[in-house]
Amino acid sequence: MAVGQTDFPVMPPISGVQLGTANAGIKQTVRDDLLIFQFGEKATCAGVFTQNAFCAAPVHVAKAHLSQSPRWLLINSGNANAGTGEQGMRDANQTCADLAGITGGRAGQVLPFSTGVIGQSLPVEKITVALPNAVTNLAENNWQAAAQAIMTTDTFPKGVSKTIQLDGENVTINGISKGAGMIQPNMATMLSFIATDAKISQPLLQQCLARAAELSFNRITVDGDTSTNDACILIASGESNTPEILMNSQNYVIFSDAVLAVAKELAELIVRDGEGATKLMRIVVSEAASDAEAVQVAKTIAHSPLVKTAFFASDPNWGRILAAVGRAGVENMELEKIRIYLDDVCIVRNGGRADDYTEEAGQAVMNQAEIQIGVKLGRGDFSQTVLTCDFSYDYVKINAEYRT
Amino acid sequence: MAVGQTDFPVMPPISGVQLGTANAGIKQTVRDDLLIFQFGEKATCAGVFTQNAFCAAPVHVAKAHLSQSPRWLLINSGNANAGTGEQGMRDANQTCADLAGITGGRAGQVLPFSTGVIGQSLPVEKITVALPNAVTNLAENNWQAAAQAIMTTDTFPKGVSKTIQLDGENVTINGISKGAGMIQPNMATMLSFIATDAKISQPLLQQCLARAAELSFNRITVDGDTSTNDACILIASGESNTPEILMNSQNYVIFSDAVLAVAKELAELIVRDGEGATKLMRIVVSEAASDAEAVQVAKTIAHSPLVKTAFFASDPNWGRILAAVGRAGVENMELEKIRIYLDDVCIVRNGGRADDYTEEAGQAVMNQAEIQIGVKLGRGDFSQTVLTCDFSYDYVKINAEYRT
Repeated sequence: MAVGQTDFPVMPPISGVQLGTANAGIKQTVRDDLLIFQFGEKATCAGVFTQNAFCAAPVHVAKAHLSQSPRWLLINSGNANAGTGEQGMRDANQTCADLAGITGGRAGQVLPFSTGVIGQSLPVEKITVALPNAVTNLAENNWQAAAQAIMTTDTFPKGVSKTIQLDGENVTINGISKGAGMIQPNMATMLSFIATDAKISQPLLQQCLARAAELSFNRITVDGDTSTNDACILIASGESNTPEILMNSQNYVIFSDAVLAVAKELAELIVRDGEGATKLMRIVVSEAASDAEAVQVAKTIAHSPLVKTAFFASDPNWGRILAAVGRAGVENMELEKIRIYLDDVCIVRNGGRADDYTEEAGQAVMNQAEIQIGVKLGRGDFSQTVLTCDFSYDYVKINAEYRT
Repeated sequence: MAVGQTDFPVMPPISGVQLGTANAGIKQTVRDDLLIFQFGEKATCAGVFTQNAFCAAPVHVAKAHLSQSPRWLLINSGNANAGTGEQGMRDANQTCADLAGITGGRAGQVLPFSTGVIGQSLPVEKITVALPNAVTNLAENNWQAAAQAIMTTDTFPKGVSKTIQLDGENVTINGISKGAGMIQPNMATMLSFIATDAKISQPLLQQCLARAAELSFNRITVDGDTSTNDACILIASGESNTPEILMNSQNYVIFSDAVLAVAKELAELIVRDGEGATKLMRIVVSEAASDAEAVQVAKTIAHSPLVKTAFFASDPNWGRILAAVGRAGVENMELEKIRIYLDDVCIVRNGGRADDYTEEAGQAVMNQAEIQIGVKLGRGDFSQTVLTCDFSYDYVKINAEYRT
């Protein structure tokens, strides 16, 4: 059901970043469900994690290990190790120790990530048995296999690659992600792993990632829920021939924008694969008094089940969009100043349906698979975009039939 | 599809409050779609209105007229007079003037209410023609006809009646309401009209209504949306034989609790008639640090499409409930202190699935049509309850097939 799904792109290797997958049998399919990233000692690593108060065990461990010069990521699909209490913490730490034992590192240098069924113990033994295979398979040219190994309910593997030039030298940024609902607490979680051969300090890399995540993964929603396991990691191997990227430099601006572009494309792929999605909606709120206000209005529209079901039905139901804007909690909003567009077709103006609006024009836009909802608030100069998808019978089916 | 629908109750007359209905042909059905309340000069009248920034025209007019000693309510179904700009304001005022012309009052003494299709001009002429019939039909014994006249997508008329004793004399409180989604912007709106023969000043009546609405209509949600037309009105005719109810009196406590009880029952009837509802969920959040925190957690659960689809499937999916609690935005919540119950069955304790939980016990509760979700936060002594319903194929069907 993915909206406008694209083929997996060509992803060149990132010098200094190796990926290895294996089948641990957690998901009991023929597909690999274990993935390791390995990167060198001079690499830097940044991370952003779920805001959910109830982080899963691996998120706690990954956060703690992020400051200990990490050299490995260890990701399993099929089991989220969430809602597993103290045992879950022991299990997450054990898998880190196992990988460190094989590779000769410290357990604190391993960041663990899990996605899958909630509330069941992590099958540590299966992971222990499969880890040597994943280590044996480590190679720089494994990005598609890696993208496949982290899939749960995803209907296609998600990858994005961009190459930029800094001081005449190539720098490549590769990213993979998984996620289909923002949360499906049994088969859960948005995970994204981005790697580059750029050389950049950890604090600056963290700043770069925080901006990119805020403007990409934090600007999408499938159902308004936030997983206990969400994480996004950015690794910089430092193996490219460009000098270190410094704060406030032109190279930082170019690099940071390229990371943002990769993150935005990964985020869009997640929405395209939204559970039951038949339409991609790009909600652009402009003329807001602040960025926060623009995001607030856009997310209220994006979370409205009434708006989402209307789009599923290809119904240009401007009343539902207008009512969502009205309940977004923005003070002193003036109805008369609001204009709402479906692509280029104005549907609301002067407090009601636009005089020149025709049902035919609205219907023509609604029949598309990708639609921009433009909302101009008439309050200021700020603009923000949120991506979402529609709400279909299949969303209910997927989430109702999913059994504990 | 209503959950546990009850028959319309016997509703005794409220002395001093007359109701009259007529068929104005707005909905083009045989059902009456026009309703008038008439009450005496000594009656007091209180109102609470939608928080949506884009109030419909009749809401603006009703708010303005509330302070002008109102004597009539004028309600039409079939057209919401919302998103209608300046013309909508003129139309709402015109219908008030028409009714005042027939009854010999002032237009400012009429509070107008509209519910139905958004964005279409109010058919004022149809209302003008039908108003004399509604006036002719005025009688104290018309409560069921009144409840039917305000229905839109409701599947049954909603009424509640309670009689209390104050100083040995009977005081009766009658209420009717309509609403099936919190908003269906074409066939929109929650409306409730409550009347009593008690004698009570307007400011105290307003205080009584504000409390009752906050703890009833503001504690239910079908889909998280808020209509542009929502309103609740409380009329006190002062015709009972009891003395005036005074602030801080024992009689006020009894009366206020009875009004709250009527409002709660009306609110519950709206949830039972939620679009596509197959289950009624009573979400009780206790041991919270404040009432606001309890409401916040309860509403986050109530608005989660993942929780709502799980309940539709009768799936005791504790992970989804726990994840919703975690993303409710409460600072410093401790996972280990949370306990979650389905009726009396504990499903979450010590950060994960309760040790003594069995799938059979959870399934037995989930198979019921009415379920209490209990969440104990372990943070304080505050407790609040929110009612909601599940999210079914029929919700998508009703809202996707509804055409502009």
